[in-house]
Amino acid sequence: MSAMKGKAVVAQSGGPTAVINASAAGVIETALRNDSVFTGVYGAYNGILGVLTEELFDLGREDPAEISRLKRSPSSALGSCRYKLKDLAASRADYERILEVFRAHDIRYFFYAGGNDSMDTADKLAQLAAEIDYELVVMGVPKTIDNDLGFTDHCPGYGSVARYTAVAAMEAGRDTESLWTHDTTTVQEVMGRNAGWIAASAALARRTEEDAPHLILLPEVPFVVEKFAADVSDCLARYNRCFIVAGEGVKDEAGNYIAEAGGTFGQDAFGHKQLGGAGEAIRAIVEEKVKVKCRTQKPGTAQRAAMHVASATDVAEAYMVGAAAVTAAMAGTTGMMVSLVRSDDGEPYRCTTGLVELAKVANAEKPIPPEFINPAGNGMTEAFMDYVRPLVQGQAELEIAPDGLPVYARLAKHMVEKKTGREYAV
Amino acid sequence: MSAMKGKAVVAQSGGPTAVINASAAGVIETALRNDSVFTGVYGAYNGILGVLTEELFDLGREDPAEISRLKRSPSSALGSCRYKLKDLAASRADYERILEVFRAHDIRYFFYAGGNDSMDTADKLAQLAAEIDYELVVMGVPKTIDNDLGFTDHCPGYGSVARYTAVAAMEAGRDTESLWTHDTTTVQEVMGRNAGWIAASAALARRTEEDAPHLILLPEVPFVVEKFAADVSDCLARYNRCFIVAGEGVKDEAGNYIAEAGGTFGQDAFGHKQLGGAGEAIRAIVEEKVKVKCRTQKPGTAQRAAMHVASATDVAEAYMVGAAAVTAAMAGTTGMMVSLVRSDDGEPYRCTTGLVELAKVANAEKPIPPEFINPAGNGMTEAFMDYVRPLVQGQAELEIAPDGLPVYARLAKHMVEKKTGREYAV
Repeated sequence: MSAMKGKAVVAQSGGPTAVINASAAGVIETALRNDSVFTGVYGAYNGILGVLTEELFDLGREDPAEISRLKRSPSSALGSCRYKLKDLAASRADYERILEVFRAHDIRYFFYAGGNDSMDTADKLAQLAAEIDYELVVMGVPKTIDNDLGFTDHCPGYGSVARYTAVAAMEAGRDTESLWTHDTTTVQEVMGRNAGWIAASAALARRTEEDAPHLILLPEVPFVVEKFAADVSDCLARYNRCFIVAGEGVKDEAGNYIAEAGGTFGQDAFGHKQLGGAGEAIRAIVEEKVKVKCRTQKPGTAQRAAMHVASATDVAEAYMVGAAAVTAAMAGTTGMMVSLVRSDDGEPYRCTTGLVELAKVANAEKPIPPEFINPAGNGMTEAFMDYVRPLVQGQAELEIAPDGLPVYARLAKHMVEKKTGREYAV
Repeated sequence: MSAMKGKAVVAQSGGPTAVINASAAGVIETALRNDSVFTGVYGAYNGILGVLTEELFDLGREDPAEISRLKRSPSSALGSCRYKLKDLAASRADYERILEVFRAHDIRYFFYAGGNDSMDTADKLAQLAAEIDYELVVMGVPKTIDNDLGFTDHCPGYGSVARYTAVAAMEAGRDTESLWTHDTTTVQEVMGRNAGWIAASAALARRTEEDAPHLILLPEVPFVVEKFAADVSDCLARYNRCFIVAGEGVKDEAGNYIAEAGGTFGQDAFGHKQLGGAGEAIRAIVEEKVKVKCRTQKPGTAQRAAMHVASATDVAEAYMVGAAAVTAAMAGTTGMMVSLVRSDDGEPYRCTTGLVELAKVANAEKPIPPEFINPAGNGMTEAFMDYVRPLVQGQAELEIAPDGLPVYARLAKHMVEKKTGREYAV
C-alpha cells in the first residue's frame, strides 16, 4: 500500500528551545524530499493559532539554504503560541475549524512539535478526524526544555538548556569564588515549573566538591527554610561561599511556590503574582537567616534560546525525531509521538527513536525520579550524572557573520491563499 | 641603567571579568621570563586584602600550564575584593601596612588590575612610597566590563561582555519574536551602574530594524515614563513585539535610579534596597501603561564571567596590557596605567598600548559620548557601531574536557611564609 497523498502542515507550540527548529528542519527536509507523497509542505504561523486563522505559508517556496540553517537557529522560526485547546466537548468548534482548514487545503498530514498540551491537542484532533471520517495522519514531535515528557528517555531541547545551565553555573560560580569576601552567596534561578530537570543539570558544573553549584533546589523536594539556611551555613563554613541553583517552581512543604511566599516575593507593585521570583525569595531568606549578602540572577528566555552554547547531540537528536515523524507517517503511522530511546547496552551512549501513543504522553508528566536526587535533597546522584552527561556532548555548529556574531534563520513565510472563505475568531 | 631587582606582586580588584586572568597571565609570564629583574612573582590573595593580611602566594611555583590556562579562564583566579582605600590621610595606616609588607618581602613591583578605585589606590601607594623613599614601581592594568575608564580607547573585559550581551539579546530576541502572541515584551537587565556601555553593546544584535533590541535604555539618558511607554507602543505597532535592553543604572529625570522608584520596585520584604531591579521596574511600567505582558531577565554575574562566548580580540588585548605593564616597569616607568590605543589610520582595526598617569585615570569616568546615542535617546548610532564592532571579533579559545564542558584554571596558591611578624585587622 502506498502512502496517502496530500499536503503536510508543520507547527511549533509553546516555549521555544534552541533545537525545535532543528526538529522542524527534520520534518520539512524529509517531507520536501518525498514529494510523491507530500503535495505541499506548509508551516502554520504561530502554532495552532495559524491553523485556526488559516495563516499558512508554503515551506516549499523557502530558500533551501534557509531551511538548512534552521538546524543552527534557536527559537521557533514558524512562530509559536500558548493557545490551549480543551477537550473535544469544550473546544469542539476549534477542532472542527482545524479540520475545516485542513480539508480546504487537502492537508492530510499534521506534524506538531510541542509538550504535553500539544500532544493532547494532536490526540484529540486525530480522534475527531477519525470520527468524521476525514483521513488525517497526526504525528507528535517532542519538544521541551523542561524534560518532563513521559515515555521518552529525554526531550529534544533539554540537552542544550542543560549545557547552558551548567556552563553558566560554572562561570558565575567562579565569579562568586573570587569575590566571596563581598558577594558571598549567589542564586541562579532557572526555568522548570513542575520538574527540576534544568536545575539538576547544573550539577554537571561540579567536578570537585568546592565547585559550584553547592546546593540545587528542585520542585521535587519540599523547601524547608531552616534546613536550607543550615545548608547554606554549612557551605560557608566549608568553602567560604555558596552558589545555589534553584528551579523557579520550588515549593514549600504545603506545596506553595516559594516565589509567592510571604505576600511580597514574586508580587509586583500592581499586585500581579508571577512565577520567576524564586531567586528573590531565596535571596531574602539567605540575607535574613544567614546574614550574608546574596546576589540573584535569572537568565530567563536566554537560557532556552542559547544556540551559541547548545549541545551538538541535542541538535542531531532534534533533527532525528523530526525526520522520524515523517518516515513513520509515510509508513501509515498516526496518533503517535516520536520518542527517544537510549541504548542500554552500556557505553558508548547511543540513541534511536521509538513511537508512543499521543494519549499516553498527553497525560503523563515526568518529575525527577528519587534515585537521581541525593539523600540530603540538595544535589544530584551519580546515576543522574550518568543520565545527563551524554546529552550535553559537543558544541552545536554555529555560522558566524563578518560582524562576529551568529547568523540565525528567518523564514520568508510566503503566505498561502485562504480557501475556507470565512474568518475565525480566536 | 639596568632595572631595579626585586619581587613583584600582582593583584586583581573589584568585579571579575572574562579576561582579567588573561591580563594576569600577561603579567606573570612576562615577569617569570625576566627573572634577572624579578626575584620572585607573588600573587596577592583577594586583591589588596591579601597584601594587608600578608596572604601572598608564589606564582613561580604554579604549574606553567595552569598559568597559561588563565588566558582562557574567567573570573579572578588570584581572588578579588571590594575593599576600598580612601585618601592618604584617611587610610594612611592601610597604605603604610602595604609598604610594610612589601619591604618585608623585598617587593619592588606592584601590578594592580582594576578600575578607577584601584588606580586611585595604586596612585596613592606610589606617592607614599616616594614620600618615605621606598623604591617601588607601581603599574596599573586596566580592567572593567563597564568600559568607563578614561584615557583608554576601551577596557579589557568590555569586548567580552559586549559579545555576551549581544548574543543573549539576539537569541532571547528571537524567543520573543516567535512567542509574541503571549510573551509580547521582554526586558533584559544588564550591568552598568553609571555608564551604559554594556546595554549599548546589545545594539550589535540588531542587523535589521525588526531585530532585537528595539529599545536600549542607558543611564546617560534620563528615563521618562510616558516617553518610554510611547516608544514601547510604537514598537508593538511596528513589530508586534518589543525587546528592551536596560542598564541597571537607568535613572529618572531627577537622577534617581528607577530600580528604587515607587518604594516597592527593587526593595525586598525586609526593606533592603537593591540595585539590579531596573528590569522589574520597567516590567511593571510596561504592564501598567502599555497593558501587555512583560518578561524580565537578568544574567547577573554570568554576563561578566562568560568565557564561553568571550571575544578573542578582548582576550588578546587583555594579555597585551598585562605584558606591557611589566615591560614598562622594567624600563623604569612607574605611576602609570597601560592604556589601549586604537589606530586611527582607518581599516583594519589595530590596537596598541600606551601609558597614562594613574592619577588621571583615578578621577575620570567615561560615560557614553552623545554622538554614540541616537537622537531619540533609545538606541545607538553608526559611530558607536564602528567603535564597538571590532571589540567583539573572534571566539576566544576554549579547552573542553571529556565531560563536554570547559576547563578553567584554579591556582594551587602556594602561600609564602609571613615575615612582618604581626597580624593586621582589616
